[in-house]
Amino acid sequence: MADLRQTLRAFARERDWEQFQTPKNLVMALSGEVGELTEIFQWLTAEESAAVMEGGRSADVEDELADVLIYLVRLADVLGVDLVAAAQAKMIRNETRFPAAAVRGQATRSPDRSARDS
Amino acid sequence: MADLRQTLRAFARERDWEQFQTPKNLVMALSGEVGELTEIFQWLTAEESAAVMEGGRSADVEDELADVLIYLVRLADVLGVDLVAAAQAKMIRNETRFPAAAVRGQATRSPDRSARDS
Amino acid sequence: MADLRQTLRAFARERDWEQFQTPKNLVMALSGEVGELTEIFQWLTAEESAAVMEGGRSADVEDELADVLIYLVRLADVLGVDLVAAAQAKMIRNETRFPAAAVRGQATRSPDRSARDS
Amino acid sequence: MADLRQTLRAFARERDWEQFQTPKNLVMALSGEVGELTEIFQWLTAEESAAVMEGGRSADVEDELADVLIYLVRLADVLGVDLVAAAQAKMIRNETRFPAAAVRGQATRSPDRSARDS
Repeated sequence: MADLRQTLRAFARERDWEQFQTPKNLVMALSGEVGELTEIFQWLTAEESAAVMEGGRSADVEDELADVLIYLVRLADVLGVDLVAAAQAKMIRNETRFPAAAVRGQATRSPDRSARDS
Repeated sequence: MADLRQTLRAFARERDWEQFQTPKNLVMALSGEVGELTEIFQWLTAEESAAVMEGGRSADVEDELADVLIYLVRLADVLGVDLVAAAQAKMIRNETRFPAAAVRGQATRSPDRSARDS
Repeated sequence: MADLRQTLRAFARERDWEQFQTPKNLVMALSGEVGELTEIFQWLTAEESAAVMEGGRSADVEDELADVLIYLVRLADVLGVDLVAAAQAKMIRNETRFPAAAVRGQATRSPDRSARDS
Repeated sequence: MADLRQTLRAFARERDWEQFQTPKNLVMALSGEVGELTEIFQWLTAEESAAVMEGGRSADVEDELADVLIYLVRLADVLGVDLVAAAQAKMIRNETRFPAAAVRGQATRSPDRSARDS
């Protein structure tokens, strides 16, 4: 991740693209890439989605996942956020927010829904 | 990243949430989190977006970035994709796709646009 | 739709919000609302999604659909695009792009996929 | 809008695509189209976004707006929601939620932010 962050910094600097990579623009770029990922999965059933890496679009999936990570890492770097540390801290909070005994097997108590309800 | 992946695996397993975490559903969850990030930035000017970590919503930004990484890492794990390796491979291709001399200072030749045109 | 467009114009003008409602910002606002809609559906099975209006979140679904239309109509108005005319023109093109005899019953030939392939 | 709804119904029926057009899948299709719209605007400044219909991508913008409306109308129809009525009802509530005198000229009191705060 640290290597990737350095690669993205150099890539932007060598192209004089730092001027375009405001956090606002990078959020939109991230969102656009997630849109491309969504288009791959939109008509698939749950089962087809689970088998997508065995089909003809596996390289596209990998490519879009790469693009999402690229913009996410670049965005966090521009904002000065330690992405992995933030995720680990969030998971520690999630352990408390969603006690296994209380939410086991319940999709309706999954993070987003409960976060919104609470 | 490897630690985070293991944490997310254990978190899902302990809650019996693996049944809900199909690639299709995880793509939607990722998309929903990017939507929350988008809402934070939607009315900000470019300048305000660059200063967002000095304002009252910095913890929200960090929280949403964490959520995006969490679902991205979990999605890649369920699909069996090595996320960082995929991003590094993509950046090697990007070096060729966007030669610095040809695209310097031009937002219109940035990755998405050119990828679509090519 | 014409009434709604007028209502949104007056709403923005009375609050001096026109300055914030650039096309770029409105695209982000639209995207954020679609993210909220996505969060409602992310853990639902296809069957559960088909029955969502009989459940406890029907008012939320209606609310998010309303928000998506509101930002879409406002965005088109700011851009000077006749939204319904554009959609009708697109459907005439779609009749040719997706001949019923050729694509019947095939999700893989649905609009987005084919558009991308062509 | 009523005509468009009928056109979309017939279009899906003639292609036997109703089986793929679950609410969940249509939410993803809507989201994917908003992603394409986002990609057009992601590197534009506020000023460039305001002038986008005078540039070389005006037809693309119109095309993506059309696609967003198409999936939104189809989704609402499948769900049995009267889209325009829902938006008008929401705007009546918004008149109360955002009194002009209290929020004039303040982006930070715009709908999404306040809705989340309230």
